[in-house]
Amino acid sequence: MKIGDRHYRSIWLSEDDETVEIIDQTRLPHELVIASLASLEDAAVAIETMQVRGAPLIGATAAWGFALAMAADSADEAVATTRDRLIRTRPTAVNLRWAVDRCVAGLARLPQGERRDAARSIALAVCDEDVAINAAIGEQGSRLLLDIVSRGSLDRPLSILTHCNAGWLATVDWGTALAPIYRTHDAGIPIHVWVDETRPRNQGASLTSWELMSHGVPHDVIVDNAGGHLMQHGLVDVVITGTDRVSAAGDVCNKIGTYLKALAARDNGIPFYVALPSPTIDWTVKDGREIPIEERAAEEVTHITGCDDEGVTRRVRLTPEKASARNFAFDVTPSRLITGLITERGVCPASVSGLGALFPEMAE
Amino acid sequence: MKIGDRHYRSIWLSEDDETVEIIDQTRLPHELVIASLASLEDAAVAIETMQVRGAPLIGATAAWGFALAMAADSADEAVATTRDRLIRTRPTAVNLRWAVDRCVAGLARLPQGERRDAARSIALAVCDEDVAINAAIGEQGSRLLLDIVSRGSLDRPLSILTHCNAGWLATVDWGTALAPIYRTHDAGIPIHVWVDETRPRNQGASLTSWELMSHGVPHDVIVDNAGGHLMQHGLVDVVITGTDRVSAAGDVCNKIGTYLKALAARDNGIPFYVALPSPTIDWTVKDGREIPIEERAAEEVTHITGCDDEGVTRRVRLTPEKASARNFAFDVTPSRLITGLITERGVCPASVSGLGALFPEMAE
Repeated sequence: MKIGDRHYRSIWLSEDDETVEIIDQTRLPHELVIASLASLEDAAVAIETMQVRGAPLIGATAAWGFALAMAADSADEAVATTRDRLIRTRPTAVNLRWAVDRCVAGLARLPQGERRDAARSIALAVCDEDVAINAAIGEQGSRLLLDIVSRGSLDRPLSILTHCNAGWLATVDWGTALAPIYRTHDAGIPIHVWVDETRPRNQGASLTSWELMSHGVPHDVIVDNAGGHLMQHGLVDVVITGTDRVSAAGDVCNKIGTYLKALAARDNGIPFYVALPSPTIDWTVKDGREIPIEERAAEEVTHITGCDDEGVTRRVRLTPEKASARNFAFDVTPSRLITGLITERGVCPASVSGLGALFPEMAE
Repeated sequence: MKIGDRHYRSIWLSEDDETVEIIDQTRLPHELVIASLASLEDAAVAIETMQVRGAPLIGATAAWGFALAMAADSADEAVATTRDRLIRTRPTAVNLRWAVDRCVAGLARLPQGERRDAARSIALAVCDEDVAINAAIGEQGSRLLLDIVSRGSLDRPLSILTHCNAGWLATVDWGTALAPIYRTHDAGIPIHVWVDETRPRNQGASLTSWELMSHGVPHDVIVDNAGGHLMQHGLVDVVITGTDRVSAAGDVCNKIGTYLKALAARDNGIPFYVALPSPTIDWTVKDGREIPIEERAAEEVTHITGCDDEGVTRRVRLTPEKASARNFAFDVTPSRLITGLITERGVCPASVSGLGALFPEMAE
């Protein structure tokens, strides 16, 4: 999508044709910094430190990490160690494993001399496919939003609540949850987005707000506590989030706090949709409770980074000194709370049969 | 309660016997600053700027504001203007109106010359009664916690989740939701508290954590998004919050986000209690949806204050420049989601008949 006049993806092959460039998402919204990845280790650290985040972009970065690794060493052992290094970066998003498995499957059977070029082709394909998938999600989801508009008798813009960042920064381009929003806005339909700030790490306040502002989509940032109140008062027409991993039965693992919004949507009769590319589906897990939940550093809760009045980025402590904190990164929303899953092939119920009907080749 | 070795209340008559002193809660947890209130305007501004907050403490501060006003001018007109100034400070907490009405009722019928001393007596009484009420809430609530301990077969400390700050800083002493926690901890029962950081204004991270740490109660700060996940995983045994206003039918208006935690408690079969002194009950309102919800400045969402590594308190912006935000301060949890109300007279169902049985003299 655009930043000012220039079109960006969130990850791309640099002009030197060797290194990979990303937008360093830990610096947004205060600074737009392009970081360069020159090695497997650079890519792995970028995932671990969340310079890149969002399940689809983690997958794409892993694929590029594989390509960078193969450019340095394409021996059988390197394929195995690259796989292990990447899988270790973050435990929850399944796109990571999907992309790494795809690389391993595509490379292991090739002669060593062909692996470098092949890995690069796979990375390029993963990125291009992600863009195409998200464009399709945008189309499917936009149809759904137009349905809500045409059914209702709204005397105000269609009001959508989203949690975390599932925009183009979380993918290679377009986004998942935000793709339908961009497409509907671009079609001239009046919409307004409630942006959960999304503690910790504030991906809503720092990334979603920045994306929507860059694209001119009307929105308001709210604290994560506010969504229930807004829904009680008829100020939300639909909730759309992304996801880091969906079980084969439609349970949705996503940024911590998603479950609370799904409960509030259910309590107030508001549709709750989750937008996802099919590589986010973990066909090996049925019960979402089996998905491993990453626990991250307490400092993400006790400290926060912002920009002071002089434009200097500063990190400050919010809690008393030596306060203890816990930091669970994700939660699982059970399928019973989900109105539908928006995929590149269409919208389906969050269930084994719903997903199976759209992806019969995967569902055994 | 204690800060180090010294016992504090949150508001007290200064040694000069004329001004009133408070702990400036906007400076915690990074600095312990005592502020002096010398006039009605000082008291009103302290409430508006949240140097004091928490429904019971707002009521106590209003009573002291009345006393300061009467010391300057005790004419009939001053009684009326004092009332109006104080009522205007914040719309949601009903203790404010309760305390102001009590002052007006107690003063209006007195000769002008007696009003100064009488107002002071009322303020002292409001404070002492609040302490006694909260001590009783602590006793009632502690019995309830001991019941949960004795019924369960916990292989870990009793785990309590709380939202916002309903500790001694929100009252004159003891607190409402935290009173049972202090009492249970003091009785030697192993407990652990999950402290919602409570955006915006972070009363959990800055006040509840500071209080519990000062008193030695084991706890962890979590983001407001985390409670649902903890409840899904059996890590919360009971939720206790305070409230800013309870309707006669038991609907609970409290800090924004309380409703989401009540939904999660219900979804996971976890008891959800609200602790309150009877002046927090608004007998004139049945349906909690009629309670006015304060909307505060967007800067409380877009900006945050913390302490940098050099110990300097700094305010930083979290959102992109010029991002739009909305800031609803409270929400209403419907009585159907509340297991019980913990009052100074006992624990009752959140209903007209429940409250009526405990407070028959108020319920018509």
